[in-house]
Amino acid sequence: MTAAPELLQTDRTRLRRAAARGTFDRAAAHAILDEAYLAHVGVVVDGEPRVLPMTYGRDGDVLYLHGAAANGLLKAGAGAEVCVTVTLLDGLVLARSAFHHSMNYRSVMLLGRAEKVTDDAEKDRAFDVIVDHVVPGRAAVARPTSAAERKATAVLRLPIEEGSVKVRTGGAIDEPEDLGLPVWAGVVPLRVAAGEPVANADLDPAVGAPTPAPELFARGVAR
Amino acid sequence: MTAAPELLQTDRTRLRRAAARGTFDRAAAHAILDEAYLAHVGVVVDGEPRVLPMTYGRDGDVLYLHGAAANGLLKAGAGAEVCVTVTLLDGLVLARSAFHHSMNYRSVMLLGRAEKVTDDAEKDRAFDVIVDHVVPGRAAVARPTSAAERKATAVLRLPIEEGSVKVRTGGAIDEPEDLGLPVWAGVVPLRVAAGEPVANADLDPAVGAPTPAPELFARGVAR
Repeated sequence: MTAAPELLQTDRTRLRRAAARGTFDRAAAHAILDEAYLAHVGVVVDGEPRVLPMTYGRDGDVLYLHGAAANGLLKAGAGAEVCVTVTLLDGLVLARSAFHHSMNYRSVMLLGRAEKVTDDAEKDRAFDVIVDHVVPGRAAVARPTSAAERKATAVLRLPIEEGSVKVRTGGAIDEPEDLGLPVWAGVVPLRVAAGEPVANADLDPAVGAPTPAPELFARGVAR
Repeated sequence: MTAAPELLQTDRTRLRRAAARGTFDRAAAHAILDEAYLAHVGVVVDGEPRVLPMTYGRDGDVLYLHGAAANGLLKAGAGAEVCVTVTLLDGLVLARSAFHHSMNYRSVMLLGRAEKVTDDAEKDRAFDVIVDHVVPGRAAVARPTSAAERKATAVLRLPIEEGSVKVRTGGAIDEPEDLGLPVWAGVVPLRVAAGEPVANADLDPAVGAPTPAPELFARGVAR
């Protein structure tokens, strides 16, 4: 089954503010999810919001989250509504007016019911997807997850189905009467940059360089 | 009044997992808030979680959030419990085992009741704090917020009082029996880097370079 090219638009994802910056384009959502490293995951605990940073992985139209089996957020999220928001910050927008200062960013918000993954094969697949999300090809290199490690890890599955994408690009948008002010306006681009890898102190020097090479996976560098 | 050196520890902020990485150090929370650009703000809407990226500013032990007066998240957050989480990603931790892959990060989670700011003077102060959070010194350079712009903007105040800080640093921690595996282990450092400023197309070239200079505010570059 081929997924629809657009994410499900519902009353709760209707873009109320700055709608011109919002889309429901599934490919755009995938691209943001694939470039970022961290999601901020929201759950409701005792009627109150909780937001925690988490790594994740995408397998087609499924997002996997994982953590220790005793992780409180994962327990709260299992079988419950979650909100997964992933944001890439692309630049600082400096306007002539304080009011029109802004940020360039790409963000996806996913809503839905997260389900705990209980099937061992799907858990193993999720582990590969999450490790390969950070370093493509790494799952094939690292020692695989053992049965005990699998048991100690909780995995949640969220369908990438209902959500929205927001993107801001471009320069500052000032009021016409401010355009002549002697104040600089424009964008300071930001990106994530990778530094030189630092080998573990306990690494046998004979092992050599990281596999795969960081140039191949440091998405912030390639941009 | 001098704030206590530690954030309030409550049952809902008790560090359940990886407690060795957690603290309640107020100065550590401030440092993370001051370095990052974006917060992920969680509120509860109709019993469900919503998480949106937002800019913010810190004034001592107060965090200010702002947005369009019609912003749904700010409306939901006014007078309600919010969770503000700010995360800095410092590196990818590659272990010999898939299971021990990790991230180095610094994160602060703040909980509390956000209050809508109604006093004009405090709103103006919040605008300065938020603009100066992005570019220190910029509020003094930019055209100040007008009465109409002030009215169009909602500001929320959250006391920096209850919360927790989590930090992971250092290399991979593999199982003793994996240390001899021929798999690279270590950290690929990540940082936010600023590029060359891009002037607005409608900027009078006579205005010259950005004020203040990006070198003075691009925290990712200085690190």
